[in-house]
Amino acid sequence: MRTVPLAISMGEPAGIGPDLILQIYAQRQARDIPAFIVYGNVEFLRARAERLGLMINIIASSPENAPRDFKTSLPVFDMGTGIIDSPAQPDAKGAQLVIDSIAKAVGDCQAGLCRAVVTAPLNKAELKKIGFKHPGHTEYLADLCAENGNVPTPIMMLAAESLRVVPLTIHVPLAKVPSMIKHDMIVENVTIIDRDLRTHFGIASPRIALTGLNPHAGEEGAFGLEDIEEIIPAIAELKSAGVDASGPYPADTAFHLPNWNRFDVVVAMYHDQALIPIKTVAFDHAVNVTLGLPIVRTSPDHGTAFDLAGKGNANATSMRAAINLAQKMSVSQ
Amino acid sequence: MRTVPLAISMGEPAGIGPDLILQIYAQRQARDIPAFIVYGNVEFLRARAERLGLMINIIASSPENAPRDFKTSLPVFDMGTGIIDSPAQPDAKGAQLVIDSIAKAVGDCQAGLCRAVVTAPLNKAELKKIGFKHPGHTEYLADLCAENGNVPTPIMMLAAESLRVVPLTIHVPLAKVPSMIKHDMIVENVTIIDRDLRTHFGIASPRIALTGLNPHAGEEGAFGLEDIEEIIPAIAELKSAGVDASGPYPADTAFHLPNWNRFDVVVAMYHDQALIPIKTVAFDHAVNVTLGLPIVRTSPDHGTAFDLAGKGNANATSMRAAINLAQKMSVSQ
Repeated sequence: MRTVPLAISMGEPAGIGPDLILQIYAQRQARDIPAFIVYGNVEFLRARAERLGLMINIIASSPENAPRDFKTSLPVFDMGTGIIDSPAQPDAKGAQLVIDSIAKAVGDCQAGLCRAVVTAPLNKAELKKIGFKHPGHTEYLADLCAENGNVPTPIMMLAAESLRVVPLTIHVPLAKVPSMIKHDMIVENVTIIDRDLRTHFGIASPRIALTGLNPHAGEEGAFGLEDIEEIIPAIAELKSAGVDASGPYPADTAFHLPNWNRFDVVVAMYHDQALIPIKTVAFDHAVNVTLGLPIVRTSPDHGTAFDLAGKGNANATSMRAAINLAQKMSVSQ
Repeated sequence: MRTVPLAISMGEPAGIGPDLILQIYAQRQARDIPAFIVYGNVEFLRARAERLGLMINIIASSPENAPRDFKTSLPVFDMGTGIIDSPAQPDAKGAQLVIDSIAKAVGDCQAGLCRAVVTAPLNKAELKKIGFKHPGHTEYLADLCAENGNVPTPIMMLAAESLRVVPLTIHVPLAKVPSMIKHDMIVENVTIIDRDLRTHFGIASPRIALTGLNPHAGEEGAFGLEDIEEIIPAIAELKSAGVDASGPYPADTAFHLPNWNRFDVVVAMYHDQALIPIKTVAFDHAVNVTLGLPIVRTSPDHGTAFDLAGKGNANATSMRAAINLAQKMSVSQ
């Protein structure tokens, strides 16, 4: 019995997010899609469905009614006004809806009305224009989840069927990365990763591999000292706390395909080190998961793709994987 | 008519190099292996062949006689004395042979007696003990190729069937990479890469992709300025000089598999950026090619693997690919 639905924030109206949601709802029976409610605008979604030629009944609903409604109609928590169906033409009203719908979806999830949040892509440039201060989804979600002023540490994980990766640093210049790789930061992050893999992925003792920062993990200090001074002691501390952490492994061999089954997650030191292997091999299938939050949150690993919006040929693989993974991660709900 | 043989330096006697050479010679007919001469020691190779149970006639030969000898016997340019067949037990005499055999192979190649050099793996630690000052094979080869004190700029390329990559910086701490990525250095290196892909790979107008240094190639300066200040102007200069260079591409999507056919080589900014994708996908098949030298040189993309030496089950795929690629690259010889 599915009594608690997933919450999906509709994302940028001018992008492919609404298209993907509508396409996936249309396939709900063939693909056994779990019940969800969209945080967005009913009139807009009706117009987009018509543009795509999808015969879908779209109704205003609530988290409580969504599981029942989902069988026959796409349930929408109706927000926003004047949202125009204009693919590739973002505007301020759409941007405000994006911001508000994420907040409402997160709130309903924290209140136990929804089991997890799946976010469709947003357009940072458009959001910035109306005063959005966060670098992206992840930081906004962390802020929304703050309790008594304590903002949780969000951790981005990319998950494909056969590989999960976490970049310990993300959107920073490469020159700043080495000084950010510190013992305490590694321990804090890996401890959260370990906990969330236990609680949300049902892995009793997650096998966590860490890459080195430098080529060949520094080759015993020949190419940089961070591996010896920061990463190795952090792994030792994690081990003594009962975490099955190992490494640092040279990053160029850590992702060799036969190694993918040896670890439940590979924690890499920076953006490209983590994202090159997963995007090279699992471009369409990777799901973005935010660990470290009191709620479960996933999203597809792509952007708004304005050039494909409203055309009906956007690839729904990653969004569908995000929905299925959110359902699985929140199985105890 | 094959009148000029490949030169193979035997590599560390205690490692798998000799095993691979013997295994490949034993398969020469079934696999249509081109004629080569080994720069190494006859008595040692006979002992290793016996250990491996390979019935191979091994004789002292010369580059001139090797193509004829190769049909019935493994031709060896006999060097060194007292080289003991002791797998996983490197010693000074073996290390000296490694150094001398590379020098002699390179010399014979420069003299036109051999068409290209294929180097079997060496053990840096053992070489260091007897005073070898070079960081590795590549720098030693460049030194051997110096003319009138001018040492050529060697460039490491890893080549698999479907992907070639060059890391512009290699064995340096990650913290030093950003300051090394400079306009002139990029232009100089890519110019050599372009020339060698024309002359040695028969590519009329090589399509050369450059990655960005920072995440998302800096996202228009949001995450670092090197992409804007150094890489973009270098690409512009290369283009105006007639090189089909493009980028900088975000490194996490540049290696997406469908992109592999769009470029003849991807020039990455540092070690892991280049080596993660090729090792993830083509671990056993990648060949290490040194561009920028007056001679053609290839090597397998693995080390001495002491634990496998003398056992007969070392994987010869990369060494065989190195031999075949060296033959192809020196087709005009």
